[in-house]
Amino acid sequence: MRLLLIGYGNVGRAFRKLLKEKSEKYPILQNIKIEGIITRRGLMIGDKENFNPDKKTTILEAIDEIQPDVIVDMSSPNYKDGEPSVSAYVKALSNGIHVITTNKAPLALKFRELMEIAESKGAKIGFQGTVMSGTPSINLFRVQPVAEVFRIRGILNGTTNYILSRMYEGLNFEEALNEAKEKGYAEEDPTLDLNGFDAAAKLTILVNFMMNRSIRLGDFKFKGIEGISSDEIRRIKSEGKKIKLIAYADNYTIEVSPKVLSSQDPLFYIDGVENALEIENEIQRIIIRGPGAGPINAAYGALTDLVLLLKGCL
Amino acid sequence: MRLLLIGYGNVGRAFRKLLKEKSEKYPILQNIKIEGIITRRGLMIGDKENFNPDKKTTILEAIDEIQPDVIVDMSSPNYKDGEPSVSAYVKALSNGIHVITTNKAPLALKFRELMEIAESKGAKIGFQGTVMSGTPSINLFRVQPVAEVFRIRGILNGTTNYILSRMYEGLNFEEALNEAKEKGYAEEDPTLDLNGFDAAAKLTILVNFMMNRSIRLGDFKFKGIEGISSDEIRRIKSEGKKIKLIAYADNYTIEVSPKVLSSQDPLFYIDGVENALEIENEIQRIIIRGPGAGPINAAYGALTDLVLLLKGCL
Repeated sequence: MRLLLIGYGNVGRAFRKLLKEKSEKYPILQNIKIEGIITRRGLMIGDKENFNPDKKTTILEAIDEIQPDVIVDMSSPNYKDGEPSVSAYVKALSNGIHVITTNKAPLALKFRELMEIAESKGAKIGFQGTVMSGTPSINLFRVQPVAEVFRIRGILNGTTNYILSRMYEGLNFEEALNEAKEKGYAEEDPTLDLNGFDAAAKLTILVNFMMNRSIRLGDFKFKGIEGISSDEIRRIKSEGKKIKLIAYADNYTIEVSPKVLSSQDPLFYIDGVENALEIENEIQRIIIRGPGAGPINAAYGALTDLVLLLKGCL
Repeated sequence: MRLLLIGYGNVGRAFRKLLKEKSEKYPILQNIKIEGIITRRGLMIGDKENFNPDKKTTILEAIDEIQPDVIVDMSSPNYKDGEPSVSAYVKALSNGIHVITTNKAPLALKFRELMEIAESKGAKIGFQGTVMSGTPSINLFRVQPVAEVFRIRGILNGTTNYILSRMYEGLNFEEALNEAKEKGYAEEDPTLDLNGFDAAAKLTILVNFMMNRSIRLGDFKFKGIEGISSDEIRRIKSEGKKIKLIAYADNYTIEVSPKVLSSQDPLFYIDGVENALEIENEIQRIIIRGPGAGPINAAYGALTDLVLLLKGCL
């Protein structure tokens, strides 16, 4: 099976390394080959650790040139229009080429359209890596079939959860943010994490997939943690409570906003960069928690999709 | 697809009802037909709500007569030798008939043998319902492929967890047990729950499946909650801690025993009949929690296996 990787940052490099390691051990991965890697700088043909583009090529041209069976998109999200990934997916899926992605933007903007193209062409989309990275969320739902999800609730952004956890321990917002940056838990420009945008993109994907809806990022309100003061956190702590940035959806409401949680709430105990997701259907309420970010975790999310694809289970 | 149900108690009846309901809505289930139900009382041919055996038949004879594609075993565990289920599985699998089971005994006693027959014949075994009923545990691992699990830790028995939770709230053992019986959380003879046997059977299945080992129930020590006094629980509570019956396995140790947990431990917060499972591999530590018992949950576990089987994903 021929892969074309899109993007070769931390996640792309971790994916390549993990795929190499696991291919030696697991027969199912032995016929997987990275045939090319494309970034903004161009296309590198073949599979080398250090990226040196062989030519200036667009993603669309690269798909023609490499003729992959699967494109694996690990590029950064462009929330303006999802490009160039959206066009790449449309082209790939229309030609029966499968898509595996850790990039949230295309699915947060065009979930239904992309799924419909995929379905009509018998191509598959793996997107575990878009929500909670390698912790089963999207793929957890694949083993919870024929049930009606009526409520989803989660802590889906590690950066904000880390900052809120540290503020709870006494730091002010600036101190907590700086510490998060130092530890690599926040990007240089953390705007999309802090204002709730990242969590909203993930919630959009979850609602479309698990609740069978057709929504786009922007269809519901979201709010981040920027306005939260140390005083407020101290006051809420004195009542035995915590503020968490909660992504929530039921059949009437979809929103991302800071919520005050009591210690009765299982999400009260999700601290630091950990993520958690509660899924309620007519049979059961389950909660999964685990790491929600990090290059290796995201790479593992994409790799699990690849294995499921090979097994015919995407 | 032709089903033969083994056992028609609470779980069997819940399964039949759930299958009917879901078949109306989900096309994937529309060609599923219950062709017979066998219990100790005999075989009922066809699919009727009220069980009236048409003839005295053994399970092995019933397999010949019904010629099912799948047997769905929802009978009670016989931990002495796993019979008559073990012989039924051997016969079914040897003939390429798939097995779905919520009955822990056969897999706790003969995991590797049964898997090998299945593999050699291209038959599948679905066993989500044996651990945590419908909360993804076995099937969660199916979407966590190509990682090396080195530690498993869980609260896998709802009865004992309920009793310990109520003792923590001030009841003595007898009161808590009686309440559990009244609420249907403990069986009339709760021995196998109280002495850790049930949790040990589940742990045996998990270790074989997730850690790729070959162990049998009886290969490791287990201890239940019978010796725990109200005084001990009170003393431990006064230190801010709780006693929980923990199923634990790493590469050196496998055991079920009561453990003192601090409030730093995520399993500290799993109370009542809820179950939880922590899985650690070289990539991540995840925890899933949800209901661990109840006829509808167990039936849903079997139904999810049926859907995964139909998708070719068992």
